[in-house]
Amino acid sequence: MEPMTTVSVHESAGQDRKAPGRPRNAQADQAIIQAVFDLLSSGQSADAVSIEAVAAKAGVGKATIYRRWPNKEALLVDAVAAMKGPLPEPVGDSVRDDLIMLISAMRNKRMEHYGKITMCLLPEIAKSPEMRRIYQGVIEPRREVMRGVLRRGIATGELRADLDVELTLLMLSGPAAMQNMVHWNPQVPEDDFAEHLVDAILRGAAA
Amino acid sequence: MEPMTTVSVHESAGQDRKAPGRPRNAQADQAIIQAVFDLLSSGQSADAVSIEAVAAKAGVGKATIYRRWPNKEALLVDAVAAMKGPLPEPVGDSVRDDLIMLISAMRNKRMEHYGKITMCLLPEIAKSPEMRRIYQGVIEPRREVMRGVLRRGIATGELRADLDVELTLLMLSGPAAMQNMVHWNPQVPEDDFAEHLVDAILRGAAA
Repeated sequence: MEPMTTVSVHESAGQDRKAPGRPRNAQADQAIIQAVFDLLSSGQSADAVSIEAVAAKAGVGKATIYRRWPNKEALLVDAVAAMKGPLPEPVGDSVRDDLIMLISAMRNKRMEHYGKITMCLLPEIAKSPEMRRIYQGVIEPRREVMRGVLRRGIATGELRADLDVELTLLMLSGPAAMQNMVHWNPQVPEDDFAEHLVDAILRGAAA
Repeated sequence: MEPMTTVSVHESAGQDRKAPGRPRNAQADQAIIQAVFDLLSSGQSADAVSIEAVAAKAGVGKATIYRRWPNKEALLVDAVAAMKGPLPEPVGDSVRDDLIMLISAMRNKRMEHYGKITMCLLPEIAKSPEMRRIYQGVIEPRREVMRGVLRRGIATGELRADLDVELTLLMLSGPAAMQNMVHWNPQVPEDDFAEHLVDAILRGAAA
């Protein structure tokens, strides 16, 4: 798997864990996050990823990592958040357009790479309640953005009043995640995937 | 992860790979398949699973395995097929009922365990075209069953004439698979999941 070409920790790492007054080395941060990605992309489990291995891969000392992250879990949170990129912002004109934008954001090239890293994290997420908590902590704000779009659609009358919002979130992200990870159904074309999925969910399968 | 309690190779292994006239040892077969499950459930990648390790775990000689399976890939095909169980048979009265039955079959306790094993296979499936071919070979007959139900629904007028069958397959199995593997959206209740998903897909989200 090729490395991610751009990971901006500045724009995307979310919560700033820097101690007050301590100077921050953006280049080292980026190398450290990139090292986490590289280790996970190479098929190493999150469990097996050690601060030692990250330090060696990033070409920094362990102290440099511990200066910014108190432990491996905190580093993984920031790595997953960096991988996800900035929170998408719906335009707010049309529920359909916003949903297409949100699903497309899950399906670009960068996210395809991310899907493969998520895949390597899944066994850890299933095994460890701590990893599960971390992962949900990163995706929950993203889910909340999509939830907001659905709630707005119910309020404006674009969506049915009795819509099951949580199930609809799963119906939007589940198929996209499975295609990202292993192209689950190879018969479904990549082109305009988000548009087709959103329209199919909106109009329903019944005659 | 607890071991699967019942794996009947007889009923579920699908294609019989036994050489003509060679006596078959069902107990050894079952122990071998169970060993593959145990190794994969313990988080070992399919890549790392060796005939040696399977033989040791199953308490049989390598020759016993090679007598029935020509190579590891063939063993993995049968293991995945055994894990999946027999092909489900739709009743044919109502498309809605048949789809609920098919999704429920993906979501029982046994399949939940299977979801966790699939998870351990996913990185191999993404990495190796051979594993990908094997896995698609096992799920394609199952997908064909669901495809048949959808096509019947279009023919009877229960489903819209312009239904995108392949996308609908992904919309049915993608959310179920993600919930199986990591309970992707913890806000979606387990109870009557299949019924809720099928109804949501049938009626659509638009007002």
